[in-house]
Amino acid sequence: MVKRKSLDGDVCAIARSLNIIGDWWSLLIIRDAMAGVSRFGEFQKSLGLAKNILTVRLKAMTEEGILAVVPASDGSAYSEYELTEKGRSLLPVLVALGQWGAEYLYEPNEEESVPLDAKRMRPLRKLELKSEDGRKLHQDDVFMPKNVILEASPSTTRKTAARA
Amino acid sequence: MVKRKSLDGDVCAIARSLNIIGDWWSLLIIRDAMAGVSRFGEFQKSLGLAKNILTVRLKAMTEEGILAVVPASDGSAYSEYELTEKGRSLLPVLVALGQWGAEYLYEPNEEESVPLDAKRMRPLRKLELKSEDGRKLHQDDVFMPKNVILEASPSTTRKTAARA
Repeated sequence: MVKRKSLDGDVCAIARSLNIIGDWWSLLIIRDAMAGVSRFGEFQKSLGLAKNILTVRLKAMTEEGILAVVPASDGSAYSEYELTEKGRSLLPVLVALGQWGAEYLYEPNEEESVPLDAKRMRPLRKLELKSEDGRKLHQDDVFMPKNVILEASPSTTRKTAARA
Repeated sequence: MVKRKSLDGDVCAIARSLNIIGDWWSLLIIRDAMAGVSRFGEFQKSLGLAKNILTVRLKAMTEEGILAVVPASDGSAYSEYELTEKGRSLLPVLVALGQWGAEYLYEPNEEESVPLDAKRMRPLRKLELKSEDGRKLHQDDVFMPKNVILEASPSTTRKTAARA
């Protein structure tokens, strides 16, 4: 049986990101933090998540430097969670997810909630993929590198073959 | 205890998307499919994933219309998986994830793999958030709606309070 890969040292930047924020609780916690949620109880109410699971997720994201624990803004004894620059930088991931969902996962006329341009309270322009020199790229213009490299295991010919 | 929400009818387009593709196996399968992987055994080798888990994931994504099962391109008896338009449209999500990972999860000089402009084999330009009318938006210019709405449960004042 092929062993599960560890992704934290994976050469692929997508895999490495997903290793940290790829389950949906994490991204929903980040969404809520971007919406102004900061306290444990608020995250719990918003997500309907068991306390122990939420505790583990918040701790992991704090250790990864995505969230920081700060004193309560109202001077009370509660601590609050706030996004670091690293955490706030996940906004394009959430925008991309929201745009995809809005396009494919709603019935016509169904109410939808997406990130908005704060000035006009309108949805954002669809994200465009562009080359370094500014050419607009379509799906076929993007090369996705193949990462068919398994864990180092020289004794297993089957795995070595997968490197080819 | 607050009950876990079902996200498939959630008003938030981010939540609804994550409900379908928010664990990292799904997005890694989509990454591999974009890189040209099409057969069960190839996905398994690339991801190092147990057969039963891979089977469940591929089935779920086929049912969601993200992947389609097609006859083998070489005329053999194997079937292959290919991305539908809905699946290919997840490319901006992967690009956004890859750009975030490349920025925050690598040591200097560490080899990294990201989606490339196929023509020049260079990384893409950083995704820009823009308003409908073309203004460049910074993080603070984007309003993330609060979705602190729990499952309908009028008898529970605590949940109702969370709607406010």
